[in-house]
Amino acid sequence: MNTLPFLLPIEKQIVKVEEKMRSQLNGHVLELDTAIDHLINSGGKRIRPAIALLTGGMLGGDESKLISLSAAIELLHTATLVHDDLIDGALLRRGIATINSKWSPAATVLTGDYIFAQAARLASETNSIILMRRFSETLATIVNGELNQLFNTSIIIDRQDYYQRIYAKTASLFELAAEAAAYLSPVDDHTINLIKKFGYDIGMAFQIVDDVLDFTGEELLVGKPVANDLRQGVITLPALLFFEGNKRMVMNNCLSRVKENTKELDELIFDIRNSGAIDLAIAEASKFIDSAMDALSDQPNCIERSSLLQLADYITNRTH
Amino acid sequence: MNTLPFLLPIEKQIVKVEEKMRSQLNGHVLELDTAIDHLINSGGKRIRPAIALLTGGMLGGDESKLISLSAAIELLHTATLVHDDLIDGALLRRGIATINSKWSPAATVLTGDYIFAQAARLASETNSIILMRRFSETLATIVNGELNQLFNTSIIIDRQDYYQRIYAKTASLFELAAEAAAYLSPVDDHTINLIKKFGYDIGMAFQIVDDVLDFTGEELLVGKPVANDLRQGVITLPALLFFEGNKRMVMNNCLSRVKENTKELDELIFDIRNSGAIDLAIAEASKFIDSAMDALSDQPNCIERSSLLQLADYITNRTH
Repeated sequence: MNTLPFLLPIEKQIVKVEEKMRSQLNGHVLELDTAIDHLINSGGKRIRPAIALLTGGMLGGDESKLISLSAAIELLHTATLVHDDLIDGALLRRGIATINSKWSPAATVLTGDYIFAQAARLASETNSIILMRRFSETLATIVNGELNQLFNTSIIIDRQDYYQRIYAKTASLFELAAEAAAYLSPVDDHTINLIKKFGYDIGMAFQIVDDVLDFTGEELLVGKPVANDLRQGVITLPALLFFEGNKRMVMNNCLSRVKENTKELDELIFDIRNSGAIDLAIAEASKFIDSAMDALSDQPNCIERSSLLQLADYITNRTH
Repeated sequence: MNTLPFLLPIEKQIVKVEEKMRSQLNGHVLELDTAIDHLINSGGKRIRPAIALLTGGMLGGDESKLISLSAAIELLHTATLVHDDLIDGALLRRGIATINSKWSPAATVLTGDYIFAQAARLASETNSIILMRRFSETLATIVNGELNQLFNTSIIIDRQDYYQRIYAKTASLFELAAEAAAYLSPVDDHTINLIKKFGYDIGMAFQIVDDVLDFTGEELLVGKPVANDLRQGVITLPALLFFEGNKRMVMNNCLSRVKENTKELDELIFDIRNSGAIDLAIAEASKFIDSAMDALSDQPNCIERSSLLQLADYITNRTH
């Protein structure tokens, strides 16, 4: 795997974060240890730990606590993915059989719970009560967002709903990664708020780009059919902007009509892909990135700050 | 409901604990609020909050923090019950339809996760890092115990296995309730350890008595068929002591033989019920209770201490 350039200054710390995650999960159930090792080894791009390590490094935070924090945040993220696989009935995650498909819902629930517990234990290694409180609040935000989506049968959404949803789903944890790193650093409340805003903006942009890639990405790269969300009845920003720009079409009517008809749905997806909505959505993501970069403008000009700017830039330019 | 005598000195605090639990769970999903309200209202005997409130009261702990702690512990317990209902496929819990039977596994997983998050948030209100750490360690212990049971297909168990299992299942949280209350009180490490031992002993006795009642209880009172555990292949102390006392019978052979034969299983259960194993098991529980009472012998002679002794006494004498 090619290392992303913004990870270079924290390569060694990322290794320590992964070691720490792994050491927490050495349970006594051999079958699960293997599955969890797989989960950790296939762990994506480590964007969340990178945010915590880079912001903490920039602000002069305590390295060992930043490593505990980063491992805690990545484990919290991992635990939610394990439970999501049960909720979605997913058989594969990042190309590997899910615990749910390999064992049972019972094993999946318990494995997720176990990872939550270890995430919380790692967070307590930071010795920061406010960090622990924000950690549990963020878990509540993420889960509450999923509950709302599960119980919200009405399809009508506006931008505000959408932004709330992606905050709960993604930006809340990015925000926590940055904010919590600031708590572990010798900085004042004003800086904490700026850094928190940076994490929030990056997270919002990250999810918008994910939602754009769901429409524009190649099926092979994304690993899911094009416009998978819309096919599941989930409206994301590109669809939302498409309907905003097409006053003639009433979103709900259109969607309920195409729902029963794959051909009409394919046509709608084609129309969205080829409308201005994609560019408008990317422009929205770019606004968040600009705001994120602004939030860092007064910070010390160090290697970590440069990497955070690279990371922000990467988020809008990635292709998968 | 008749109030148990040991709850009298803390009646007002218990009401506050219940209010606190309820206030944490006012989500935005109306359907779930009702279900969670049911869960809280039907919340058993509040033994765990009682242990925290009484030990904390005895030791001069901060009342408002003790209430947060008690609500956190009872919510942690509630969250594990919600997930257990999914694991066991239970349709009813305390006579009320489980979330799993009413909605879906997805709703059950998320509801449990949400309650975990709120439990952790309440625990952070105590401002005690060591308490937060022990809180997450206890969740890990409970879940790890369940994972071991799920993946442990071998039926052979000895007393050590059994004690480990009931520690994970029950005593660990009783221990935490007492220990954490001590952390919130102006006492030294020696007292914390004594109080922790008290919680441990009470919890071990509580689960042994539960396991005895599974054999001796009336079906109507217990709400499950007699010897439900054994019917599910779970060996508890009465069965273990029965086989220890019957050298001729090799436990595994006997159990695998009766497994396919309900009549033989009924006979085995009849034999265990009418053997000395029941009294031996109760004697084991009594040893733990004696040890628990010893642990309190040097504590101030106050109303809370009397209530804790009553609570200990109640545990071995209860009938359901």
